[in-house]
Formats: sequence, structure tokens, C-alpha cells
Amino acid sequence: MEEIAIYLFYDIRDDGLRMRVAEACKDYGLARIQFSGFHGALDRNMREELFLKISDILGDNAGRVLLLPVCEKDMKGRMEILNERHDDGGGDALAEG
Amino acid sequence: MEEIAIYLFYDIRDDGLRMRVAEACKDYGLARIQFSGFHGALDRNMREELFLKISDILGDNAGRVLLLPVCEKDMKGRMEILNERHDDGGGDALAEG
Repeated sequence: MEEIAIYLFYDIRDDGLRMRVAEACKDYGLARIQFSGFHGALDRNMREELFLKISDILGDNAGRVLLLPVCEKDMKGRMEILNERHDDGGGDALAEG
Repeated sequence: MEEIAIYLFYDIRDDGLRMRVAEACKDYGLARIQFSGFHGALDRNMREELFLKISDILGDNAGRVLLLPVCEKDMKGRMEILNERHDDGGGDALAEG
């Protein structure tokens, strides 16, 4: 099944749940691009499986999750700033989870 | 010029800069959907203007910003969880900025 690029962003207050969601994203081969944002390529089955897993982790606890498939055209249209952190040795804040 | 849906997510450590970026997003009519995530519709000129404004605010300070245009097909393919916060009266954590 065709893999397409996805972005996944979440806003989860509970530290333990947030770390478990991050682990799930990594388990599916996604790469961390922000503190609470991941990027990668997944086919439809894997997208649905990951989303279901995250839904299970979160349960009815407070949180927001967005999983967004992105076509090639939209990927080309994205704009990004990636400024390294000068104050802590570079990107350590992304090491959580 | 045609407006299309966009998502904008950022990861900015400095509280003041982060709040200024949030204000810029609101000034361009975007709606807050996560603590550091906005959604709305902007044409190409407005997207570039907002992105330039955010670049100016951030300067060379540490931070990551992603502005993603999203076509109708991808919008339809998105998956979301929007669990209300039961612990603080509902969504107060989104009131920052």
C-alpha cells in the first residue's frame, strides 16, 4: 500500500501519556521534528493503526492529536524555520520521550 | 488569490517570542488548535507575509516553525482527537498569548 508523508502533532498535558505517544510515533518510524511533532511516511493501514494506538493510550484523558497526510504538492509548498538551540548544546529539548 | 487551508506549528522556547508568534498567527485570522499550533485559510501572499513576520520575530533565536498548506483531499484524510480538559475547566491551557 502506498506510503505518503504524514505529520503528527499533539498537545497532551500528562507527561507519562505524552511520552507513551512519542514512543508510539517512534515505533512507527516517525522522526521527531518538534517537541510534540513527528514526521514520516506511512501507508493507510499503518496510519490507522498508529492513530488507534494513540487513541488507546490517551483514552478520555485531556489531549489533542492531529495526524495529517500530506501530498507531494503540499510538501513542496511547506515553509520551515529550523534554528538550532545555542543555549543548551543543540536540540536537547527534543530528547524527551 | 485563492485561499487554502494551512496548519502552522512551532516549537519556541522563549516565552516572549512564542507569545509574539502566537499573536502574529491570530492577527492573520488563524485559530488556535493546540498550545503551539494554529489552523486557518490564507492565500499565498498572506502565507509568505506571515512566515516572513514570524522569521523576523524569531531572528536567529532557537526555534522551529512549520507552515504547511493542505489541499482538500489531505484535509479530508486528517485524523483528530479533541479531548476536552476535565481538570482545569476546559481549554485554559490554550489561553496563553
